Amino acid sequence: MGIVIGENQYGKAECRLVTVDRSSDRHRIKDLNVSTSLRGAFDQAHLSGDNSNVLPTDTQKNTVFALAKESPVNEIEDFGLRLGRHFVDSQEPVEGARVLIEEYGWERIPVGGAGHDHSFARAGEEKRTTAVTIDGSQAHVVSGLKDLVVLKSTGSEFWGYPKDKYTTLAETTDRILATAVTARWRYLHTDVDWAKSFEAIRSTMLEAFATTHSYALQQTLYEMGKAVLEKQPEVAEVRMSLPNKHNFLYDLERFGLDNDNEVYIAADRPYGLIEGTVTRDDVPPAPQAWYTLPEF
Amino acid sequence: MGIVIGENQYGKAECRLVTVDRSSDRHRIKDLNVSTSLRGAFDQAHLSGDNSNVLPTDTQKNTVFALAKESPVNEIEDFGLRLGRHFVDSQEPVEGARVLIEEYGWERIPVGGAGHDHSFARAGEEKRTTAVTIDGSQAHVVSGLKDLVVLKSTGSEFWGYPKDKYTTLAETTDRILATAVTARWRYLHTDVDWAKSFEAIRSTMLEAFATTHSYALQQTLYEMGKAVLEKQPEVAEVRMSLPNKHNFLYDLERFGLDNDNEVYIAADRPYGLIEGTVTRDDVPPAPQAWYTLPEF
Amino acid sequence: MGIVIGENQYGKAECRLVTVDRSSDRHRIKDLNVSTSLRGAFDQAHLSGDNSNVLPTDTQKNTVFALAKESPVNEIEDFGLRLGRHFVDSQEPVEGARVLIEEYGWERIPVGGAGHDHSFARAGEEKRTTAVTIDGSQAHVVSGLKDLVVLKSTGSEFWGYPKDKYTTLAETTDRILATAVTARWRYLHTDVDWAKSFEAIRSTMLEAFATTHSYALQQTLYEMGKAVLEKQPEVAEVRMSLPNKHNFLYDLERFGLDNDNEVYIAADRPYGLIEGTVTRDDVPPAPQAWYTLPEF
Amino acid sequence: MGIVIGENQYGKAECRLVTVDRSSDRHRIKDLNVSTSLRGAFDQAHLSGDNSNVLPTDTQKNTVFALAKESPVNEIEDFGLRLGRHFVDSQEPVEGARVLIEEYGWERIPVGGAGHDHSFARAGEEKRTTAVTIDGSQAHVVSGLKDLVVLKSTGSEFWGYPKDKYTTLAETTDRILATAVTARWRYLHTDVDWAKSFEAIRSTMLEAFATTHSYALQQTLYEMGKAVLEKQPEVAEVRMSLPNKHNFLYDLERFGLDNDNEVYIAADRPYGLIEGTVTRDDVPPAPQAWYTLPEF
Repeated sequence: MGIVIGENQYGKAECRLVTVDRSSDRHRIKDLNVSTSLRGAFDQAHLSGDNSNVLPTDTQKNTVFALAKESPVNEIEDFGLRLGRHFVDSQEPVEGARVLIEEYGWERIPVGGAGHDHSFARAGEEKRTTAVTIDGSQAHVVSGLKDLVVLKSTGSEFWGYPKDKYTTLAETTDRILATAVTARWRYLHTDVDWAKSFEAIRSTMLEAFATTHSYALQQTLYEMGKAVLEKQPEVAEVRMSLPNKHNFLYDLERFGLDNDNEVYIAADRPYGLIEGTVTRDDVPPAPQAWYTLPEF
Repeated sequence: MGIVIGENQYGKAECRLVTVDRSSDRHRIKDLNVSTSLRGAFDQAHLSGDNSNVLPTDTQKNTVFALAKESPVNEIEDFGLRLGRHFVDSQEPVEGARVLIEEYGWERIPVGGAGHDHSFARAGEEKRTTAVTIDGSQAHVVSGLKDLVVLKSTGSEFWGYPKDKYTTLAETTDRILATAVTARWRYLHTDVDWAKSFEAIRSTMLEAFATTHSYALQQTLYEMGKAVLEKQPEVAEVRMSLPNKHNFLYDLERFGLDNDNEVYIAADRPYGLIEGTVTRDDVPPAPQAWYTLPEF
Repeated sequence: MGIVIGENQYGKAECRLVTVDRSSDRHRIKDLNVSTSLRGAFDQAHLSGDNSNVLPTDTQKNTVFALAKESPVNEIEDFGLRLGRHFVDSQEPVEGARVLIEEYGWERIPVGGAGHDHSFARAGEEKRTTAVTIDGSQAHVVSGLKDLVVLKSTGSEFWGYPKDKYTTLAETTDRILATAVTARWRYLHTDVDWAKSFEAIRSTMLEAFATTHSYALQQTLYEMGKAVLEKQPEVAEVRMSLPNKHNFLYDLERFGLDNDNEVYIAADRPYGLIEGTVTRDDVPPAPQAWYTLPEF
Repeated sequence: MGIVIGENQYGKAECRLVTVDRSSDRHRIKDLNVSTSLRGAFDQAHLSGDNSNVLPTDTQKNTVFALAKESPVNEIEDFGLRLGRHFVDSQEPVEGARVLIEEYGWERIPVGGAGHDHSFARAGEEKRTTAVTIDGSQAHVVSGLKDLVVLKSTGSEFWGYPKDKYTTLAETTDRILATAVTARWRYLHTDVDWAKSFEAIRSTMLEAFATTHSYALQQTLYEMGKAVLEKQPEVAEVRMSLPNKHNFLYDLERFGLDNDNEVYIAADRPYGLIEGTVTRDDVPPAPQAWYTLPEF
């Protein structure tokens, strides 16, 4: 019987990498938040403070910026795979790597009707994400998006649920449905046109959210995931975390006013939280791809 | 000689009002954050806890939602003026009011190429703002925007500054210039097409940011304000707070790589902070309109 | 081959429960953030919007507050177990539950040298946490703390690490070591004096952080976890997530000043991130207890 | 008639300065957030991008760290005065300076019953603040605290307020009163024992909050300010911003349970906001000392 070191990883979190492609006067920018973690033979660092296997997190940071120069960053999945592979291949004690990347969108500032060559405005709070896992010779890519805030002002019902002694909610056939989508989807392989796949998945999810007449946020979640799997054969499974951002009808009867689903108060907390997985039933699971990701 | 109560105000902050205009199947939504404060004869509440002049903040909250039903909210300036005037006119001890409103933008979700009737996505982190001040029979409107994040990947220089013994910054003729614009502008009167004025000011500011070849963020600030005043006769003055969000060139020479303004690290803190006012020289100041606003 | 719903859960997040024990004039308060999630037979809600098995999140919220009245809340582990058991026992389709609780500390305001009977000040940003999992008849308790920010101004070294072409970090035998501790520990059973165990673990961790001469943050992590396991037989394993909050020596040589580890700049991002598990080697793992927890 | 540059300032915000006093083995640390702004003859930077008067914000940052080494930082008011005076005295075009400093508290980690020599834990979210204004040869010091969260579980009433058609709030003779104190006080001169004065003011405010039987948060605000002015002759006026952090009694009657002020839900938004000034009636106002401070 004894005390041992179990699962562990370490790295540099949140390297804010900005690149400018100046190959023409019409600049293109990438704005990324890159986190790297290494896994491997690090027991002695824990047990005795022997760092001979520990590539410093400072070096990991330098590597992020150097590799961004050595070849074009391209899509975040490309860059994540390249970074992860670099660490596993170049450092003997490193057996695996996890690279998390968030990408912030920018749009050209319109000047005289056309987008400016080198002036940009941030496109919103939504982020495109990827979580790349290198495990020896294997690679997993789980991409996603977060903070995509959406709302339906009708087309959402909620009724038919069990009642118990603590039930006070009234059933409704017309309510606001609002959420902030966090989604991650696992790719079956890495031979993917990442940008094209991302755009298709995002559009599909938005469209499914918009067009599903919803009886439960669970149903909306499932429809969003199913639509992605139906259209994108490269995706194995989709996981979503959907806070139900409540908009409560404000009680105006007290002031002699009716309120026909017109005036709401948006609440912060508590909020519903619906989490689920939509998956193909014929693909093997890949727990390593999801390990330590914060989503359900 | 004694101790007295000085300037004071009180109210309800951050009422999250959401309205749905269902007058047609093509819904329109407004998503606002409304804060009200009252000013007036409240000495006794402070001195002795006598609340006979204190309209509760809870009642102020109810009023925000009730007035949103009694007539359409329209533009935030309209709603702020209506709310502020309501409190001053209906409560004898209330001599003035300050109404702060932030508006969050939403866009229709595209489905089959067209925007959906009742499904929306949040447009970004940028907010449209107004600060309405009712002071007896007078009204001031100071509108603005915040969290408009912009970046120029070139067209920005910084040199010719004084050097002292603590100077280490190198002069540059090509740097990234990035900021998050917080701007407020004071209107000369309230007979304004608020939505049209806002859109024009926002476009003008963005265009000025994009097209100004910048030698200092101060210069960019001035050009942005000047362009607004030149085009919008209804505006008396513009105040801006511009954090200089630093993007530092990453030193890649250490790895045998050049870095021709291509690879940057975005820094969080510290940041430069440039604050200033651009004003017409022939309008009287209106300190009451700006009193207690957090901006410079 | 088909598309199916996989792992899922749903519930109400962040119910902000505050209780006042008024059994004597010397009030005691509890300030909690309670999130509940249910697991079970919810396929039809996803597939067809049939909510007949879906106890509303609104009802879950009511239940949190009602159960807080029906018996004393006591320690957060007690309350989590009671809440989770309630849902599983009272709702046929509910097979499991996850209850997350954060507790905020309060101290009595000193008046005339003694703590006041009913006036309190928040004790800090640190939170005590628990994650209770009910899985049929089984129960797991994983408790913890977060946002415990600690710093050593000396007694930390970092050297002996591998160098590659991207290495620029200088080795050091004296640096600041600072982190914000997030820790979770799994209990072997539920027959525990929760408050006493928490206090002992917290003190042990702090003491281990303070007294370990550190050669790596990994080593400090291990020493903290090991000390807990040595002293607390009720604990099976400890997981920690330790951001290395960098304090960089400011380069004052440029101004003709030395800097003998006296003047630092604290950095926000990027930061190191050290994550690891310290465990007994003779206890079976309990992945269900950790499932979907955001920590490594 | 023309367009001109009005009030303006610029500087470096949020320099995170950490100092370690190693004059004995019992280290002492200071953890500060320092922002500097300069005021003066900067019109040409705005009008033409001529930076010949503009001491770079980068140099201001270097200066913060260099001056922290050249002499001990001491109290934040001392350091603010020294920094502000440095800029005004050493740069011809600089006519004034504003230095904002926040200080984060740290406590020694207890080891074997005694505080450790060089290991510390953050003391809480509360910050000590100062805003120093140098205006030519004059100096103003406005110090304060923020994020001091306090709560009374009884001893607070609210009734006797005006009712109108939007009133729904019930009067109460027993409610929770909770707030997060932001306070600033202006010193009459700079010949002050800053640390002693701060500690006395903080204790006085806390004690006044605890012992005032409150009929309105306005009354509590006034009593807190009055107590400070009565005890601290060096203080001219106190300004406070007190959010009324609502804790609402949860309606348990619906479940057949009474709720004798025992079970509450803490709300985030909206919140009341009470802002006011308590001042001596025989001191001249000093608007320059408060100019651009975010508080009322």
